[in-house]
Amino acid sequence: YKGPERKDPAEDPWKNEPARHPALVARSNNPCNAETPGPVVAANLITSNDIFYVRNHLPVPPEPKDPARWQLSVGGEEARSTSLTLEDLKTKFKKTTVTAAVECAGNRRNEMKTVKPVRGLDWDTGAIGNANWSGVKLRDVLLHAGVDPDVCDSLDGPRHVHFLGADSDPLTGNVYAASIPIELAMASNKDVLLAYEMNGEPLSRDHGAPLRVVVPGVVGARSVKWVTQIVTSREESDSHWQQHDYKGFSPSVDWNNVDWSSAPAIQEAPVTSAITAPSANTQVEQGTTTIPVRGYAWSGGGRDIVRVDVSADGGATWQGTQLHKVPGQKPGRAWAWTLWEAEVILPTPPADSKGPQQVCLVCKATDASYNTQPDSVAGVWNLRGVVNNAWHRVGISVGN
Amino acid sequence: YKGPERKDPAEDPWKNEPARHPALVARSNNPCNAETPGPVVAANLITSNDIFYVRNHLPVPPEPKDPARWQLSVGGEEARSTSLTLEDLKTKFKKTTVTAAVECAGNRRNEMKTVKPVRGLDWDTGAIGNANWSGVKLRDVLLHAGVDPDVCDSLDGPRHVHFLGADSDPLTGNVYAASIPIELAMASNKDVLLAYEMNGEPLSRDHGAPLRVVVPGVVGARSVKWVTQIVTSREESDSHWQQHDYKGFSPSVDWNNVDWSSAPAIQEAPVTSAITAPSANTQVEQGTTTIPVRGYAWSGGGRDIVRVDVSADGGATWQGTQLHKVPGQKPGRAWAWTLWEAEVILPTPPADSKGPQQVCLVCKATDASYNTQPDSVAGVWNLRGVVNNAWHRVGISVGN
Ligand SMILES: [Mo]
Ligand SMILES: [Mo]
Repeated sequence: YKGPERKDPAEDPWKNEPARHPALVARSNNPCNAETPGPVVAANLITSNDIFYVRNHLPVPPEPKDPARWQLSVGGEEARSTSLTLEDLKTKFKKTTVTAAVECAGNRRNEMKTVKPVRGLDWDTGAIGNANWSGVKLRDVLLHAGVDPDVCDSLDGPRHVHFLGADSDPLTGNVYAASIPIELAMASNKDVLLAYEMNGEPLSRDHGAPLRVVVPGVVGARSVKWVTQIVTSREESDSHWQQHDYKGFSPSVDWNNVDWSSAPAIQEAPVTSAITAPSANTQVEQGTTTIPVRGYAWSGGGRDIVRVDVSADGGATWQGTQLHKVPGQKPGRAWAWTLWEAEVILPTPPADSKGPQQVCLVCKATDASYNTQPDSVAGVWNLRGVVNNAWHRVGISVGN
Repeated sequence: YKGPERKDPAEDPWKNEPARHPALVARSNNPCNAETPGPVVAANLITSNDIFYVRNHLPVPPEPKDPARWQLSVGGEEARSTSLTLEDLKTKFKKTTVTAAVECAGNRRNEMKTVKPVRGLDWDTGAIGNANWSGVKLRDVLLHAGVDPDVCDSLDGPRHVHFLGADSDPLTGNVYAASIPIELAMASNKDVLLAYEMNGEPLSRDHGAPLRVVVPGVVGARSVKWVTQIVTSREESDSHWQQHDYKGFSPSVDWNNVDWSSAPAIQEAPVTSAITAPSANTQVEQGTTTIPVRGYAWSGGGRDIVRVDVSADGGATWQGTQLHKVPGQKPGRAWAWTLWEAEVILPTPPADSKGPQQVCLVCKATDASYNTQPDSVAGVWNLRGVVNNAWHRVGISVGN
């Protein structure tokens, strides 16, 4: 698929980027990739729009010149070609609000390079946020386009739903694209949205104005921003981001022997958690016996977080934490993250200790399927540095 | 709930136990708990009925005296009290066959005691099997009993479906019971069955004759055998096995401070795998450079296994494996296990090595949500020794 208009090659494709909040921590400039700063990321159950992490693959597309004439096209196999304006979406379909975390598959990639080099943006723990997304259910739009409600029962019908963005590569004209399984798109309880509002405001340019996909419980790469085309198909998206990126491999696979077709595209995210306070290398006063520790936890597939354990001795012993949840989530549809905190008891320093005591704080979460995080980054290392969900470790020191 | 008939206290409650295959490895006799022997457990994609592990909590109930008069009672909140004979189930409902693994939540408990003592049967890797289960969908039976197909949308309707077995405690008369969320019971794509056949044969006494529940993707404890009553309810089952067993806790929780109400009953199982050959302590000849390694992998919730990694150096480096799958599983409904095998390259012994070389084989699986197994048993240790899904390790030696 090509974007609708090729740019003049002499034109700077980055000249129309929107302004960003200065507190965002840039990981790349063109395209903009910037994360919520560590101490802020889990400060509130709902992440403010202006400090929500930005993960762009391409230049931000221009705003529609005439918003009233903006159109979403829906079509594909066993679907009727349909065009919908934003007004159509807002008036012909039921408005739904879903609280959902969106996490970049590369969140926490920076820990992976301590094992072996990886390629990708050097995200710390802030490529995740939690927002109230409002819009219409993708299911309703697909039904409106004539997709059979029992399409999933058919073995020879379409198996995937593709999303195409308005953001295009300035050199090739290729637009960002991804797909999800049709079971997910059509499920009435999976809450896949075509969202036009984020926390009660129209989407900003960085977050996909005027319309984006939000696939709850799935890595951010499938929640396509600036969506303009939705296509049902027997085939998975053949986009770079579906076929040659956002896949996980064994630690033994490297760039010389990787077979991209051997691994499935990442959809549901695994269980994860991170410590957002204190920051790494924090120094606390000699004699401190307890410190407040806090962070977030989340799991894909709507699986709720049932427990977060925290350790002040590198994982040898564990302490409990208090969980804070978005109220009103339905069973099996826990799309929001869980925040957690604990007043953590520090280990007693040895009587003969000299100099600062090094303390390794660790957290790990367990979800409703009793999946829990793997202990080491080495075991989940992969060449592209995705879905790092190892125990999260933060080193601090006590005394001086 | 009480069983229908209290036994004469003078009568031996164990005198009517069925005969069992001599190859089964007993972990307790009364009640019978016996596992499939290691080398056999993953020998075939389908486990034979006679060597399928047996996990009984109570004496095996007597066979119905008059099978034609055996009845299943269905009722509860927002359901019509209904009785169904086996003939009713076989003739009034569509027969469905589902290939599903059933795994005891205590499988691989024996590794946990290497960390700290645990209470429970000392299962090795054989408390799991994979069979073709035939019967009727629980959903269809609930609809037949008048349960609203949209019951899950209602916030004040029944939230759970209880299963009561005919097996009762000889002292208290309490029957085995458990419940599952009504979302699972009513979902058309979750394939919860009331099964009367196992691998094409009527259920044997040990496996729940004449009727059992099979909840695919969920720990075995909810797949109630000898089921005679199904009850919808706003409340979860208050049975011992739902409220005071089959729950997971942090390694820091012990029998002095456990609060059973603080953890949810285990339903979906986490991703797991095990090496079934070679056996622990196998000695292979000096000079051997590769050995065949095989085992099983499985994950709850219908999440397929996408990869199994195996290591011959304790997890420092990993090798790929070949996966063997039951054909025809539907997307997101991978209820069967996956078998795997590899010809594993052994580490080169150091030139100056004397005596046998100790080799630690390890396996770990990744599922479709990119959840993977935690590295250490210590991190998932819990007082009841359930859902141990740490990397599985088998020590062998090369040479002598
Ligand atoms: Mo991403
Ligand atoms: Mo069990």
